[in-house]
Amino acid sequence: MSEILQTTAKTKLKRLPKRGNFEREKIYQILDEAFICHVGFTIDNQPFVIPTGYARVGDNLLIHGSAASRMLRALAEEIDVCVTVTLIDGLVLARSAFHHSMNYRSVVIIGKAKVVSDEREKADALYALSEHIIPNRWAEVRPPTANELKATLVLSLPITEASAKIRAGDPIDDEEDYALDVWAGVIPLRLTIGEPVADDRLKDGIEIPPHVSNYKNYRR
Amino acid sequence: MSEILQTTAKTKLKRLPKRGNFEREKIYQILDEAFICHVGFTIDNQPFVIPTGYARVGDNLLIHGSAASRMLRALAEEIDVCVTVTLIDGLVLARSAFHHSMNYRSVVIIGKAKVVSDEREKADALYALSEHIIPNRWAEVRPPTANELKATLVLSLPITEASAKIRAGDPIDDEEDYALDVWAGVIPLRLTIGEPVADDRLKDGIEIPPHVSNYKNYRR
Repeated sequence: MSEILQTTAKTKLKRLPKRGNFEREKIYQILDEAFICHVGFTIDNQPFVIPTGYARVGDNLLIHGSAASRMLRALAEEIDVCVTVTLIDGLVLARSAFHHSMNYRSVVIIGKAKVVSDEREKADALYALSEHIIPNRWAEVRPPTANELKATLVLSLPITEASAKIRAGDPIDDEEDYALDVWAGVIPLRLTIGEPVADDRLKDGIEIPPHVSNYKNYRR
Repeated sequence: MSEILQTTAKTKLKRLPKRGNFEREKIYQILDEAFICHVGFTIDNQPFVIPTGYARVGDNLLIHGSAASRMLRALAEEIDVCVTVTLIDGLVLARSAFHHSMNYRSVVIIGKAKVVSDEREKADALYALSEHIIPNRWAEVRPPTANELKATLVLSLPITEASAKIRAGDPIDDEEDYALDVWAGVIPLRLTIGEPVADDRLKDGIEIPPHVSNYKNYRR
């Protein structure tokens, strides 16, 4: 059985607790399917929410970016952070306006991130970030130079205080509303992958490699 | 020409300022295409980021939910909030690991939300929230009862301190890397609409209405 994370005042679901899930396995499934998170942090009482790519490695969530980034520099001070990952699965059309909803799977992680300063760990983290978003890409591209590594900040957030929230399936209408002549159900939504578009400056004679042409199969 | 919002210390882009955009028209295009935002707020120094649906009406962003929601009750106290909307358009594959990126369009709005308490305004807001996500749905469903309205909190955030950030197009590689034998380009991503799935308890003889069957055409 999957480990259950301890709920805290910050991750406990006050409303609709049956949508909450604290199983590490369920949380990791969501983290491994998505690749964009929204990072929340507070500077001088002002909250900011910034989208960025991420990867999960073991029990840590990794993010990275320019060493000049305001967000990364703030997080590097080990301030409180909230990272949220959201997958939207569908629009839920009920018979009443009130019971309309969305199907989604989201994860909220609370904690403090640490700079990954060890050079080997940092290189491994950048590899993981690349492979999570585009598997098998790393081996084909020019690796980072020493200067590029220096210009990049990698942060690691332990996944200890975290919860998933999931809604799936049909609308839940008030019992008397099921008699109404209103269509009800779900409009599914998903992120889909289009046909790769070659760079205008692509060198002649370079074929699309399998990690690009098969990307559709990788992401559902 | 579209109005340009004033930049402030909070919305000014410190890095890659050429990706920033303060035109009201550009900001509204992004807000009108997406329908999920991530709301950031701080309680006892802890930032939280929660996904929710929204609608833009005029120069305000509306969100709503249960009057029992921790987030909405906190925001109703007119605390500082950051609302971020992100559309992911593609993965940008460069010839070097370092220059990989994503194409995206995002909006960040900073400010304080106010409760929409006037009953007429609140009803209009709920209509707008529904129509933004599923146009022409409202007219076909059972409208909210007085009790449902009471159980719902609507908040309005003025779009005054806001900015868009946009990346589009090909990778930008270091000049010498264009000679490498590496495929480079963009893998497009978009949210697509699947075939509607009827509720298991759908009454016999109810056809899929045009606002559901044509939803694909509405969202690109």
